[in-house]
Amino acid sequence: MFQTITIVAPGLLGASLAIAASEKSVAKDISIWARRPEAVESLLQQPWCTRASTDLDEACRGSELIVLCAPVNRIITLAEEISKFAIGNPIVTDVGSVKADIVHRCEAALVGRAHFIGSHPMAGSEKTGMENACGDLFEQRVCFVTPSDKSNPEALAKTNAFWEAIGSLVVQETPDRHDEIVAQVSHLPHLLASSLATFLATRCPTAADYCGNGLRDTTRVASGSPELWHEIVDQNRPEVLRALRDFQDHLQSLTAAIANQSDFELLKQLADGKQFRDQL
Amino acid sequence: MFQTITIVAPGLLGASLAIAASEKSVAKDISIWARRPEAVESLLQQPWCTRASTDLDEACRGSELIVLCAPVNRIITLAEEISKFAIGNPIVTDVGSVKADIVHRCEAALVGRAHFIGSHPMAGSEKTGMENACGDLFEQRVCFVTPSDKSNPEALAKTNAFWEAIGSLVVQETPDRHDEIVAQVSHLPHLLASSLATFLATRCPTAADYCGNGLRDTTRVASGSPELWHEIVDQNRPEVLRALRDFQDHLQSLTAAIANQSDFELLKQLADGKQFRDQL
Repeated sequence: MFQTITIVAPGLLGASLAIAASEKSVAKDISIWARRPEAVESLLQQPWCTRASTDLDEACRGSELIVLCAPVNRIITLAEEISKFAIGNPIVTDVGSVKADIVHRCEAALVGRAHFIGSHPMAGSEKTGMENACGDLFEQRVCFVTPSDKSNPEALAKTNAFWEAIGSLVVQETPDRHDEIVAQVSHLPHLLASSLATFLATRCPTAADYCGNGLRDTTRVASGSPELWHEIVDQNRPEVLRALRDFQDHLQSLTAAIANQSDFELLKQLADGKQFRDQL
Repeated sequence: MFQTITIVAPGLLGASLAIAASEKSVAKDISIWARRPEAVESLLQQPWCTRASTDLDEACRGSELIVLCAPVNRIITLAEEISKFAIGNPIVTDVGSVKADIVHRCEAALVGRAHFIGSHPMAGSEKTGMENACGDLFEQRVCFVTPSDKSNPEALAKTNAFWEAIGSLVVQETPDRHDEIVAQVSHLPHLLASSLATFLATRCPTAADYCGNGLRDTTRVASGSPELWHEIVDQNRPEVLRALRDFQDHLQSLTAAIANQSDFELLKQLADGKQFRDQL
């Protein structure tokens, strides 16, 4: 499918992607950039790594597809660095969990040098690091691909084909719609669970004595890393705020139905909620 | 422990209570009242039923403890009927999931005739009816016992001892505090899950295509019966409304922290939520 691809930063996602690309023969050569020389040493021992370097230019040389697997706050800087040496219009994509800002800034940085197409594979694990990488991390998982109106159609088609070959289910959305969707289906539920937990911590600190599975399920994700979720909220702040505010209005309509003893409205909301949940 | 107890209405809870009382030798004689003559016929075949009748007076005759296991909207009427024939000051308790209204009205109905002590065993199942009854339904489950300032101390002690002998973990609270607790730890989480589901049903109807376990957990209880939850909300309306409104204020403080980029406050809320959830 590709002669050479480059993976930038071999963390859990990057290394898993290299393993999957190797296992599925998505690329003949897999080049990997790592920050530390020890990581390069270690990578060169791996059967799924053709070459490795701490020099970004060298690691990207001759690549048709460069996948930026660094943390979100590093992706734009990496694209700017790549713009200094890129030749032959390679495709550059990423794995960041928010898209609008990244897509617009990476496109601007790479214009005329490379084709940027944003990606967000919904894959991960509590574990991190190359040592936990595995080739089936992306198998049957959704991967958002987020073209803009400036995207090169051929680069977009090749990016989609890459993720499909890796085993992902590609969902194509605009960067803005992507950020709205993840705010609604992921960031909002997390913040609600966390807020319910902090509410009960003050109102009913003995809740553990008489809590059932309902409360355990509803608040489960509140156990996630505060630092990680702070970072996610920070990156998608406008959409997270919009989802929170829209939800607050929606919750107010339920509260009003209960306050006004609108039995029909309350029953309808409960039935609509059940119908939606039953199909998840 | 008791010579004779009476179970009023052999549904899932009532029949399970009779089985547990028999297995654990909590009472020598177990008398059961049922509305339908066919149910009485069937009860008389069971090893855990000493006598059964469709006549409430007859079923309660000579009992030291009468447990009302009928639906919440029938409990007060049953207490009023029992007041017409009760002699010897038996204890009357119930299994209703809301307490303030029931306790005050049953106490008033039975004053001078019987000692009413409210109970709420937090036990149940998706299944209903006597055919699904089992003796370990109450094992290691919390049972709220909710005395008021009018409660007879000896009747309270015997009610506590009854539930402990059945296998429950007794938690004693006032009726008002009980209703506040269940609004916070059970009714509020349910309504939030349901409201999140109805919100997503309109904003992101394709959520099923890219929803992860976080959303599945957070909304799981929204699959519960709308009719049942409508009834629960109806019975505990003032406390449910108070929990909803207090939570809305609390959620607003989280939203404000995000809007104002108050990173310290956001991190603190996420960390407090994690700490509470981790101990559930």
